[in-house]
Amino acid sequence: MSGWLQGLPVTLAELRGRVVMLETFQMLCPGCVAYGLPLAQRVHRSFPSTDVTVIGLHTVFEHHDVMGRDALAAFVSEYQLEFPIAIDRHENDPVPVTMQRYQLRGTPSTVLIDRDGRIAHSAFGAFDELALGAQIGRLLTEHPTPGAAPTQPAPHDAPVCEPGRPCVG
Amino acid sequence: MSGWLQGLPVTLAELRGRVVMLETFQMLCPGCVAYGLPLAQRVHRSFPSTDVTVIGLHTVFEHHDVMGRDALAAFVSEYQLEFPIAIDRHENDPVPVTMQRYQLRGTPSTVLIDRDGRIAHSAFGAFDELALGAQIGRLLTEHPTPGAAPTQPAPHDAPVCEPGRPCVG
Amino acid sequence: MSGWLQGLPVTLAELRGRVVMLETFQMLCPGCVAYGLPLAQRVHRSFPSTDVTVIGLHTVFEHHDVMGRDALAAFVSEYQLEFPIAIDRHENDPVPVTMQRYQLRGTPSTVLIDRDGRIAHSAFGAFDELALGAQIGRLLTEHPTPGAAPTQPAPHDAPVCEPGRPCVG
Amino acid sequence: MSGWLQGLPVTLAELRGRVVMLETFQMLCPGCVAYGLPLAQRVHRSFPSTDVTVIGLHTVFEHHDVMGRDALAAFVSEYQLEFPIAIDRHENDPVPVTMQRYQLRGTPSTVLIDRDGRIAHSAFGAFDELALGAQIGRLLTEHPTPGAAPTQPAPHDAPVCEPGRPCVG
Repeated sequence: MSGWLQGLPVTLAELRGRVVMLETFQMLCPGCVAYGLPLAQRVHRSFPSTDVTVIGLHTVFEHHDVMGRDALAAFVSEYQLEFPIAIDRHENDPVPVTMQRYQLRGTPSTVLIDRDGRIAHSAFGAFDELALGAQIGRLLTEHPTPGAAPTQPAPHDAPVCEPGRPCVG
Repeated sequence: MSGWLQGLPVTLAELRGRVVMLETFQMLCPGCVAYGLPLAQRVHRSFPSTDVTVIGLHTVFEHHDVMGRDALAAFVSEYQLEFPIAIDRHENDPVPVTMQRYQLRGTPSTVLIDRDGRIAHSAFGAFDELALGAQIGRLLTEHPTPGAAPTQPAPHDAPVCEPGRPCVG
Repeated sequence: MSGWLQGLPVTLAELRGRVVMLETFQMLCPGCVAYGLPLAQRVHRSFPSTDVTVIGLHTVFEHHDVMGRDALAAFVSEYQLEFPIAIDRHENDPVPVTMQRYQLRGTPSTVLIDRDGRIAHSAFGAFDELALGAQIGRLLTEHPTPGAAPTQPAPHDAPVCEPGRPCVG
Repeated sequence: MSGWLQGLPVTLAELRGRVVMLETFQMLCPGCVAYGLPLAQRVHRSFPSTDVTVIGLHTVFEHHDVMGRDALAAFVSEYQLEFPIAIDRHENDPVPVTMQRYQLRGTPSTVLIDRDGRIAHSAFGAFDELALGAQIGRLLTEHPTPGAAPTQPAPHDAPVCEPGRPCVG
């Protein structure tokens, strides 16, 4: 990550035991504004964060010069987003690092991570609210495996998923 | 029940092992038409009926003379409802029998029944889609208890819930 | 007409000088319930009835036995429609008289009548709200022609359109 | 104006004879994105621009550093706005010049200008679609007065309203 808004940096290791909803967006993406972020906001308000933790991830892959940290901060303030926001990091590619490692096609994308830190579902575009609720309900009912090693490990450098080391994503 | 449309009568005993969504309505109830029945239709389409069985229950407690079986059949046809519809039975009270036994306040009401035949949730009015999805997801993840006796037994005469005997509700 | 609900019978002659919105519907028509009648209700509330008079017309052409006057009265009460409702009359055809004479394809249909009693617009299905507003705005700005004879006379037997004689529609 | 996107600068004098809808917005204003700009887009598509000319006006009064011309251009491109956009000009006040002269309270605001170049209506917040349509319909029906001098002249420095000189607003 190149930074965080509204909350201290966390790693997936620290969130082990919770269900995590990672909502990736760009502040100038119409679908993110129209349905992706409002749905993330509803999930954030519908479940205790100790059960379901919602994290926004700003994965800018175009118009980089006008979607920097200051612009994002104004956007988050105006839209009154209430969950923590991580900022994906760029190296030599317009597509940022975490977005590439999660193999996301674009924005908005929603990634659900189970209590053991594994990716349970990844969806591009509108996520049907009933289906999302059902996925979350299933994941909440499953108990974390004591000492489980993720069978489908989350990729390195992911915003909230690097166990045992600082979030450098 | 005084009858069924679109499907053979079933009992809750026959549906044991499935999650059941019972959507109670009146054909002239605006909230039922605007949000209750459309949500039931979306659940019916979103899950295999062997996982989640949706059943409509026509619980008429007013305007009885214009919401009889023929009127209901025309309504169900025009609105293209696809799930089975049971018709609640009247005795000496304008409020029909099953509606009373389930202690429902009015229409629309949604009753969720778990795989063991127990009432897991009962809600009057609009059911938030995310919350309904989460409830269904939880119930689907729970396995039916072999030989379980319901701890909160469904009331007698309920449309789909009388174990071991024909549905006389 | 075979009758009226919520208001005394009127003729188009009596409404000369006003813009009239005639909203035709059937109580079991999903499109009428979802958008036709709500739009008529919004027009009724948005303009003084001395400027724009909204009249509902129940043009039943199917399921006649369950959409009679009593059923309609219950429907109008439950949906809290606030404008007068005329009931189209049947003779030897399932399609009622006024609906035929106005050459309406089905329900919902919206007919706009100008201050001189002429049909200004007739639309089947959803009427774009912006376009409807613009039509009404145009018609309101036009002054009625003193002593004008309608060039496109409204058909006989129409609920509100028979000049000089009682509404026998 | 400090500039234009999507279209050559115009003055109200050049638009005399047309109805003009001026939609003021900020790109990070949630209400503008949710309802103000979509409504302007619908008006732009519903009427020939020789009848009704829609012009967006970017009236930034906060977060100036992240809502500059480049950011606006990316926004307009992503949201596929199809009408010309003028950029309001700042002097020594965070509130831009035209916004002050039109005495607008905030964004979104909608200003309707009649065929004679006079302000016919100015509204802050959501503009009911039916009412907006009716206003436009009325204004379209009125003929421009030959040689009319505006009785309620549009303020100086307005984006599209300075007759006889370049648009310096």
